[in-house]
Amino acid sequence: MQQRVPPTVTWADVEGGVVRMIDQTKLPGELVMLDCREVECVAQAIERLSVRGAPAIGCAAALGMALAAHRSQADDSDALRKDLRTARERLAATRPTAVNLFWALSQMDRAIAEHEGEAPDAMRAALLTRAEEIVEDDLQRCVAIGRNSLELIPEGANILTHCNAGALATAGYGTALGVVRAAHEAGKGIHVWVDETRPLLQGARLTAWELCTEGIPATLITDSMAGYVMGQGRVDCVVVGSDRIAANGDVANKIGTYTVAVLAERHGIPFYVAAPVSTIDYELASGDLIPIEERSREEVAMLAHRVAEPVCPDVAIYNPAFDVTPHELVAAIVTEKGIARAPYAGSLRAMRD
Amino acid sequence: MQQRVPPTVTWADVEGGVVRMIDQTKLPGELVMLDCREVECVAQAIERLSVRGAPAIGCAAALGMALAAHRSQADDSDALRKDLRTARERLAATRPTAVNLFWALSQMDRAIAEHEGEAPDAMRAALLTRAEEIVEDDLQRCVAIGRNSLELIPEGANILTHCNAGALATAGYGTALGVVRAAHEAGKGIHVWVDETRPLLQGARLTAWELCTEGIPATLITDSMAGYVMGQGRVDCVVVGSDRIAANGDVANKIGTYTVAVLAERHGIPFYVAAPVSTIDYELASGDLIPIEERSREEVAMLAHRVAEPVCPDVAIYNPAFDVTPHELVAAIVTEKGIARAPYAGSLRAMRD
Repeated sequence: MQQRVPPTVTWADVEGGVVRMIDQTKLPGELVMLDCREVECVAQAIERLSVRGAPAIGCAAALGMALAAHRSQADDSDALRKDLRTARERLAATRPTAVNLFWALSQMDRAIAEHEGEAPDAMRAALLTRAEEIVEDDLQRCVAIGRNSLELIPEGANILTHCNAGALATAGYGTALGVVRAAHEAGKGIHVWVDETRPLLQGARLTAWELCTEGIPATLITDSMAGYVMGQGRVDCVVVGSDRIAANGDVANKIGTYTVAVLAERHGIPFYVAAPVSTIDYELASGDLIPIEERSREEVAMLAHRVAEPVCPDVAIYNPAFDVTPHELVAAIVTEKGIARAPYAGSLRAMRD
Repeated sequence: MQQRVPPTVTWADVEGGVVRMIDQTKLPGELVMLDCREVECVAQAIERLSVRGAPAIGCAAALGMALAAHRSQADDSDALRKDLRTARERLAATRPTAVNLFWALSQMDRAIAEHEGEAPDAMRAALLTRAEEIVEDDLQRCVAIGRNSLELIPEGANILTHCNAGALATAGYGTALGVVRAAHEAGKGIHVWVDETRPLLQGARLTAWELCTEGIPATLITDSMAGYVMGQGRVDCVVVGSDRIAANGDVANKIGTYTVAVLAERHGIPFYVAAPVSTIDYELASGDLIPIEERSREEVAMLAHRVAEPVCPDVAIYNPAFDVTPHELVAAIVTEKGIARAPYAGSLRAMRD
């Protein structure tokens, strides 16, 4: 079933300007738009995963800064800058792992610095322009990643993916799903194994939905089945996105990604990471320094609650939201600038903006 | 919270005899007993996973044969044997992977052969006696497994387990959870990482419940977190049960077990299998010959359904219920007869009844 899907997150020129996003917590059942009139709304949307996926979080943060400028009642540049600093602190505090959030905020910092001292309305316009550029650039980077990845994907490939690194994780098109889309559009006849991705089921709810609505062949499995299908010889490669890549090529991504990489190595299956250069954190030497967000126990426990009230509601629960795949398990990192291979310290540095 | 838990499956002397079992599909919310008055009820209970876990399935099948004998209106030994044959075929057709089912049925075959030609009431009594022996033996075997495993479990060990191989999977005490119980009772101060075990959540619903009700420290995680906690150095060993062990030591168990074994190997963590000798299929040379049950798509899809109605209800779904861990990833197999190590062809043969 083909349907026209609205942008993941965008600026809408209503009510003096709002940040409009798909509320991803409602997918796949309902396609509901959320209009944020204040930066607090954007911050909570990030925290609640109404908008998620590292590049999309960056886009939302950039637009959130433009929103803060538009909503600020400041009539001089000092007062506006103060409101912007408050907004920046709020957005920076939402989620710690995805570096694209901090990259986008520093892009907006730079725009603010470039227009320092100008009249508030000039600053407002400049920040909106810059934020919309960040969103449009992200979409183009995804398309470039897809194009760059074509040589890695054989005809008829069975691609396994984890989480959602699709249009919903970005300004559009997707990183890992950009690789999938590019291969599909090139007529390679690919098929995708979709890890459901517990606890929040981004695979089952978002990736399966994206692929299904576009008619790209896909099969949904539980995370526990990935090893089995690999052992059956039914997986040709793995492609995932990333929330942060360290300078040495260690890759942080949704919890369970490291497991998929270990399995891929055992089966001689290449493990590819698709991400824009803005995901690379050159200041971080290695993956063990990447902050790993922990989220509420309810995300894990809710299944038992949905099935039946638990007898032991106090059972301890652990909910790390990400893990780190060491660079030695990564066959290649595909960015908008091309394909980087080991040794990564050098190849990633060469891609630096 | 300590509570007195009824037997997983047993004979109850009511209404001329019924097979009484905990209905595990209702756990952890409700502790509901199911009384089967006919063998068809027992067969469906196995198929629906009201009773599950390889040894428990065997116990249920043995009691089901005794039930068939009691319910048969046959008044001569030929007619009774015919009814018993029908019952046996029905029970054998329930689920293909757990060898204990077929082991128990062949034990009952032998009892039938031993009492061939006797009056129906003598056969009925003999079959009930044999079935109750099988149940009592299973409990004692689990206790022996626990005792035999003590030397493998260090003080303060963090044990990771998958699925439920506990009291609910056996006549009582459990295989993998028998190892846990024995270590806990010996005062080793152990802690258990409980994989929730999608799709049917035997870990979250059953294992977490067993450990919690007995005050054994445990932490529930999604299957996708096992690699992460191992990488954090927080797992000392893995202990799982099994549905079938091939003659060469290849081990079939709940889907996702193979993944845990691969992860354990990478981290130098011993992967132990706890199972009675009745789980060893000496006629099967290797694991690739073990039949892997596939179950309904609804078990995987239901999560999305519970969260929201899916937009793409026809997305392909794969639901293999088991996988096979090759013997080279198995550090030891603990049975009621002791600990078997590689090379397994010889050490398992030495344990043969």
